[in-house]
Amino acid sequence: MSQQLTGIAASAGIAIARAFRYAHAAAEAPQRAEIGDASAEAERFRAAVARAKTEVDAIRESTERRLGAAKAEIFEAHLMLLEDPDLVDAVLEQIGNESVNAEYALHEVTGMIVEMLRGMDNEMLRERATDVLDVSGRVMSHLQGRPYAALSGITEETIIVAEDLTPSDTAQLDLDYVRGFVTEIGSRTSHSAIMARSLELPAIVGVGKAAADVPDGTTIVLDATEGRIVVDPSDEELAAYRAKKDAHDARVAELKRLAAEPSVSADGVHVELAANIGGVEDVAKAMENGADGVGLFRTEFLYMGRNSLPTEEEQYETYRHVLDKMKGKRVVIRTLDIGGDKELPYLSLPKESNPFLGLRAVRFCLSREDVFRTQLRALLRASTAGKLNIMFPMIAVAGELRQAKTILGEERAKLESEGVPIAADIEVGIMIEIPAAALNADYLAKEVDFFSIGTNDLIQYTMAADRMNDAVAYLYQPYHPSILRLVRMVIRAAAREGKWTGMCGEMAGDLTAIPLLLGLGLGEFSMSASSVLPARELIGRLSKEEWSKLAEEALQLGTQEEVKQFVEQRSHA
Amino acid sequence: MSQQLTGIAASAGIAIARAFRYAHAAAEAPQRAEIGDASAEAERFRAAVARAKTEVDAIRESTERRLGAAKAEIFEAHLMLLEDPDLVDAVLEQIGNESVNAEYALHEVTGMIVEMLRGMDNEMLRERATDVLDVSGRVMSHLQGRPYAALSGITEETIIVAEDLTPSDTAQLDLDYVRGFVTEIGSRTSHSAIMARSLELPAIVGVGKAAADVPDGTTIVLDATEGRIVVDPSDEELAAYRAKKDAHDARVAELKRLAAEPSVSADGVHVELAANIGGVEDVAKAMENGADGVGLFRTEFLYMGRNSLPTEEEQYETYRHVLDKMKGKRVVIRTLDIGGDKELPYLSLPKESNPFLGLRAVRFCLSREDVFRTQLRALLRASTAGKLNIMFPMIAVAGELRQAKTILGEERAKLESEGVPIAADIEVGIMIEIPAAALNADYLAKEVDFFSIGTNDLIQYTMAADRMNDAVAYLYQPYHPSILRLVRMVIRAAAREGKWTGMCGEMAGDLTAIPLLLGLGLGEFSMSASSVLPARELIGRLSKEEWSKLAEEALQLGTQEEVKQFVEQRSHA
Repeated sequence: MSQQLTGIAASAGIAIARAFRYAHAAAEAPQRAEIGDASAEAERFRAAVARAKTEVDAIRESTERRLGAAKAEIFEAHLMLLEDPDLVDAVLEQIGNESVNAEYALHEVTGMIVEMLRGMDNEMLRERATDVLDVSGRVMSHLQGRPYAALSGITEETIIVAEDLTPSDTAQLDLDYVRGFVTEIGSRTSHSAIMARSLELPAIVGVGKAAADVPDGTTIVLDATEGRIVVDPSDEELAAYRAKKDAHDARVAELKRLAAEPSVSADGVHVELAANIGGVEDVAKAMENGADGVGLFRTEFLYMGRNSLPTEEEQYETYRHVLDKMKGKRVVIRTLDIGGDKELPYLSLPKESNPFLGLRAVRFCLSREDVFRTQLRALLRASTAGKLNIMFPMIAVAGELRQAKTILGEERAKLESEGVPIAADIEVGIMIEIPAAALNADYLAKEVDFFSIGTNDLIQYTMAADRMNDAVAYLYQPYHPSILRLVRMVIRAAAREGKWTGMCGEMAGDLTAIPLLLGLGLGEFSMSASSVLPARELIGRLSKEEWSKLAEEALQLGTQEEVKQFVEQRSHA
Repeated sequence: MSQQLTGIAASAGIAIARAFRYAHAAAEAPQRAEIGDASAEAERFRAAVARAKTEVDAIRESTERRLGAAKAEIFEAHLMLLEDPDLVDAVLEQIGNESVNAEYALHEVTGMIVEMLRGMDNEMLRERATDVLDVSGRVMSHLQGRPYAALSGITEETIIVAEDLTPSDTAQLDLDYVRGFVTEIGSRTSHSAIMARSLELPAIVGVGKAAADVPDGTTIVLDATEGRIVVDPSDEELAAYRAKKDAHDARVAELKRLAAEPSVSADGVHVELAANIGGVEDVAKAMENGADGVGLFRTEFLYMGRNSLPTEEEQYETYRHVLDKMKGKRVVIRTLDIGGDKELPYLSLPKESNPFLGLRAVRFCLSREDVFRTQLRALLRASTAGKLNIMFPMIAVAGELRQAKTILGEERAKLESEGVPIAADIEVGIMIEIPAAALNADYLAKEVDFFSIGTNDLIQYTMAADRMNDAVAYLYQPYHPSILRLVRMVIRAAAREGKWTGMCGEMAGDLTAIPLLLGLGLGEFSMSASSVLPARELIGRLSKEEWSKLAEEALQLGTQEEVKQFVEQRSHA
């Protein structure tokens, strides 16, 4: 009889194939053995580390070729781990002091480091445990003289079931055979989830220990449109899911035909559907999905997962590359948005009691002008490669905007005096994600070229509820009348000054919300690339009369429940 | 030549007198000596602890008599410290293990505990270091056979200069001679600052190490209207400060005559000027200062500084007492507002990444109905003693208000079925301190009897800036147009439903803000008791025409700087 498991749908799609149970070598604890010649054992360990380095370096190169430099960066980190004294020297020390075999010492040291990392408050550090396990497993395989990660040997259609997939694992997936994967741990933002979306591979993560009981070789259905796994499906279930898969795949294919079409409503209103990107490697997918531009380039990823600030030259190369690849379509680049839940350990910023209400984003940049100026110079220098918009995040009051614009003007003047060419038509705008800015939008609109509403933070602050805190998750209410009022206030204020307003939070890609947002007057929507085509299709079926009426009526309601119910009813009508 | 020092004006007023340098016994490190008979030494220590207990118990009783039960609670904590194994057993152990004298062991153990506490993130725990020093100093004085705290022996007019003043110290101040005090450490909310305000004694805290250099016996001027200390003033300075002191004292006396007057404008508009209180002990001062009622009773103080939740009976006694003493004037009692920066260690709540955006106040109460119901029962039972208003803090959405009201209704029904008398005219309202609630006020107004705007939090959330974080202190902008708009929105929404709106944040007691707030339509202002009479005097000089025009013009401005400048200009005109 079939059995069902559920998890977090990390990358949409449906797959049906045999389960392939996959476990890392490091997971099996080696026996402790007393060794006569500790120095020979140490040498054996050093040799295994050296071979692991050669291997990782090769994977890094092939990943960079296949998926771009950013996706390959993780292997730079692995190479550094293979030289990290906390790992390597600690193992050597244990071999020397206790005269134990290298396998045992490696297993012990790894276990200690992983336990410590998993106990951390910081999610980035917790995720780092996966890297340590990956690197350690690879060294272990060399010590034991067997290949690491059998994943590359898969030669039939397979859905991988694992505790977690490491960067080494995902880099080796053979997409001719691997149809999807299931992991016990992880969230929508863990490495494996991001990779799955990037590879357009259906995946469900965070299934829990139950995933470990899926027998190797059983047929399973992976329905990552809903986060459901059916183990050993009945014939009826199989037939139903095959039909669902065909329908899903057909729809994806059909939508792809819209990639070259404009974003326009049934009655001819043009809308801009842009993509959110995190780096150069996301541009191809934005273009494939027919995005009208980039509505949000989150530059903080350039600063994360490394040990020092990116140089002006590195940043320049990245921005120029993105602008160039977008072929003259609008690219909104947001200046560094660090702080809150995104830390940069190498800056050693003071710990704050409420980081979401602290020295984040533009507040940080205005307190560290050196960091800010480097980024602005890189942006200005890259501006001639395409259509650049510069956007400042977390503006609360006009004074901050003026300071940021003054600094931008100073850097422009310096570059011009050096003879560096700079585009004349750079638009400068701000994120509206703080209630004060939304309420003051009429005033701010006079001093910007555009607004982009960041709903994730705007909702968080308007509700005074941490969006990462489960205890107050019920207050994350995008459809609450207060949010709708702020959104309308911002759009109207911009329109009165002849400026445009976009939106780059989660809400902009939500098909239920889009008609309402159109009704509030929104003209630009920026979302994950995979949401662009469904949004374009939906808008093609709508008309201005319809959405205006919808918004007008929704604004009369008093609670999120009422608004949501009303909007959902209408969308079914 | 005179020298000037500056600090935080913790309690307004001016004093001129000789400096009295005061240092705790524990501050002088005793010599380490080897002891032959460790058990005799341990006995000597135990005897000193026992004598300290007897003394503290006596101080507790006299404080309760003079200043009320709440002010005496701190000595309950001291009695517990005198039985705390971390302190007492640790000293005995060190005497036993190392055969050292009791003085040295006590000094060492105290030093360790204090250092640990001062390194804590939590301000409440840091403040606890003062209690440990106090208790330890008292035991030390008994070990050394000399009186603890020479403060009680002061017999001439004196301004005390100390590193800090402990609860034992302030309890012993002889107000016939002590004219004020200066401390090196502390903030507006530290024990010594709160005590100074409660005793109406001029005080400047947080002066830093420079205070240690004030020579004992020198004449000093303590100008706690500005936070300035003049050491060894010249004759001219002395004359000037004497004149300033006379003017200040005359003004305080003159204002006192307004205590029995109504709060009414020059053109006859009546306003309600209420006091914020934290417990029974603040009621007398509210009445003395002629408050028209209590606009905010912060009940969390009933829950703090203890080891378990207060019982229904304890709460009932407190609420009944306050209602009774206020003699039928309105008393707005806010239900438990815990979380954020206010922790209750005994509830062992999970640590949150952003406590100000977490499970605070009514959110916590709705998740812990047992705690909430106990408080509501106590309130309902006390309601017949006066004019009770119940206020829920941190309401963001209508659903929370409805839940809270349902629970209140259930407890009322239960009590009524038990035959308990309950007042018929209890008003139920909410704090407006979350932007979502302000923006949704038209809808919420239908379901409450009143609003009270909490500006401290409303500003913090509207600006997305932690009001305790210095790095973003520039964003605490009460005069920002966004805040003014929200305030007006709330007042108008309530008025349309025939409900009243008050304000109980810092802004309500700010003389510069009051005309503006009147112009926005505010009818009730709740502030610290000492601000009531200056506010009443100011309002007596204003007219409705004047404040309406002021607010209308201020609302046209775009930044806090512009609004503030405009309002200040007008107030000088």
